[in-house]
Amino acid sequence: MRGTVLHAPGDIRVEERDHPKIIAPTDAVIRLSATCVCGSDLWPYRGIQKMDGPSPIGHEYVGIVEEVGDEVTSVEPGQFVIGSFFASDNTCEICRAGYQSSCVQREGPVGAQAEYLRVPLADGTLVATPDVPDADLVPSFLAASDVLGTGWFAAVAAEVGPGKTVAVVGDGAVGLLGVLAAKQLGAERIIAMSRHEPRQKLAMEYGATDIVTERGDEGVAKIKELTNGLGAHSVIEAVGTQESMLQAIRSTRPGGHVGYVGVTHDVALDGTELFFSHVHLHGGPAPVRRFLPELIDLIWRREIDPGKIFDLELPLDQAAEAYRAMDERRAIKALLRV
Amino acid sequence: MRGTVLHAPGDIRVEERDHPKIIAPTDAVIRLSATCVCGSDLWPYRGIQKMDGPSPIGHEYVGIVEEVGDEVTSVEPGQFVIGSFFASDNTCEICRAGYQSSCVQREGPVGAQAEYLRVPLADGTLVATPDVPDADLVPSFLAASDVLGTGWFAAVAAEVGPGKTVAVVGDGAVGLLGVLAAKQLGAERIIAMSRHEPRQKLAMEYGATDIVTERGDEGVAKIKELTNGLGAHSVIEAVGTQESMLQAIRSTRPGGHVGYVGVTHDVALDGTELFFSHVHLHGGPAPVRRFLPELIDLIWRREIDPGKIFDLELPLDQAAEAYRAMDERRAIKALLRV
Repeated sequence: MRGTVLHAPGDIRVEERDHPKIIAPTDAVIRLSATCVCGSDLWPYRGIQKMDGPSPIGHEYVGIVEEVGDEVTSVEPGQFVIGSFFASDNTCEICRAGYQSSCVQREGPVGAQAEYLRVPLADGTLVATPDVPDADLVPSFLAASDVLGTGWFAAVAAEVGPGKTVAVVGDGAVGLLGVLAAKQLGAERIIAMSRHEPRQKLAMEYGATDIVTERGDEGVAKIKELTNGLGAHSVIEAVGTQESMLQAIRSTRPGGHVGYVGVTHDVALDGTELFFSHVHLHGGPAPVRRFLPELIDLIWRREIDPGKIFDLELPLDQAAEAYRAMDERRAIKALLRV
Repeated sequence: MRGTVLHAPGDIRVEERDHPKIIAPTDAVIRLSATCVCGSDLWPYRGIQKMDGPSPIGHEYVGIVEEVGDEVTSVEPGQFVIGSFFASDNTCEICRAGYQSSCVQREGPVGAQAEYLRVPLADGTLVATPDVPDADLVPSFLAASDVLGTGWFAAVAAEVGPGKTVAVVGDGAVGLLGVLAAKQLGAERIIAMSRHEPRQKLAMEYGATDIVTERGDEGVAKIKELTNGLGAHSVIEAVGTQESMLQAIRSTRPGGHVGYVGVTHDVALDGTELFFSHVHLHGGPAPVRRFLPELIDLIWRREIDPGKIFDLELPLDQAAEAYRAMDERRAIKALLRV
């Protein structure tokens, strides 16, 4: 079967790879309907995150169950399913507390930019839609596999809710879907921090009430200006750099909440600043599985349209162009048709 | 009047200082019944926190209202009152959210190791007891002024509650009163991390169910061993060093909560470790005012006895010996009779 392999920074290829097989009785193999390129795939692609030799890549997937192991009971061949970047048993104490991405048995399905994928712990990882969805819903379900679930977790971690002012740092797919999540969770005011017009536009469509184009200290000053000098109640951080983390923390009022989901790179937080900021800090790899049933329902009923974040669609074989377009910020997010 | 002045590291003196006066119409002047030395006073005393010349010191106080400004309505001369290290208006949006120690008008009453103290924003800062208390209750009310309120905030920030396992890093007064708070808040299991026998004993009296003497990575391993390999649900950090913060974060299970109240010194938190830890992090200067009414009630009804943490009592004039005893860890906390 065909699938992507990242050979070195900037060198992504679609190659013939082994067809995945059931290894453990809790596995499923799915035939992918669509996959995509994640902002976090760009870290190794850009050489910022070190890699050990060529590696299959991709961790966002939806598709039709092809085969299941003997112990799988909750999904069956023919069903359309959505999973996420960490497989989880969904039964351990950590999963039951809602942190499936820290499941004691967690492992990552690897190489999801491909025709087929083996998903471990299928019962605890995959969620089926009520029926095979119409084609136009596939991008939205694919978004639920990571970026929607991640933006949603960020909003929940930031304790977004009715009456609150929310600021969103980062205008990638996760940040934009953080705006959508904030709207769904009842935020009164949603400030999107973006200087890119197409992204500003999508942020407004998703429910942003204000756009702030300034960054860093100027961005913080602008958020303060919009919030009686206090800062936002809830801030979603969806980048992962030192600058964006500080921008998020400093934009939050004392007692407010920062939900951070941008995979952190070279971030060191000064204890004294954090101490006196009085903010709540929570985040990490989103436990997408916690939210999948609810997100699937919202998409199935066409209440939300997270699939709009895909502004580029290419066949799997053109994955290299998809990476380039995202790296150069020509595309917010690229969907790969399988 | 007499009061302490820290001249240089290790050089604390009791000197004649100006008798405080009402400056603003919202001020009160109180005649102190007792004051004490705080763990955080030891930072400048030890020369770890820089100081600009000689400075009055101390921020924990209880006493009788001597005089109030024209606008003060909630306390009156003759009442026994308790305040805390930051004065707050208790009416701004931040105060109403429970973060009085980040009040938009906050200022610190300074130099509380003295006979008299001016307290700004008296209405929003001071809380009176139902009547002038019996002498044996004074140490407990004094504890409420900072260390009890701080330990309590740490437990609340760590989301301590029924069914939860709590670990406490730090066996100073705040850590020990964090144990007391955890017990009051219904924790199922309370693990005190301490290697000092008298402190272990007090921790057990306050409700600790387990004592862990190991520190650092070994301490973390021990906490994991006691919690099915997962870590505690809630961890109270009451020291403020890099080692203690990491010990707290690493002792917490994914999805768990760290409440940190040790004033941080030279702490830098690695973003990647924090990200993948999946913990909630919240803390800072405790909004003691939020908890004072409840704490005063518990003490007045003799349900809790936080005054036990004072294991040394000296007249104000012997403040230097009080500092030495705490610095050398001969005393947990020293009360100064005024």
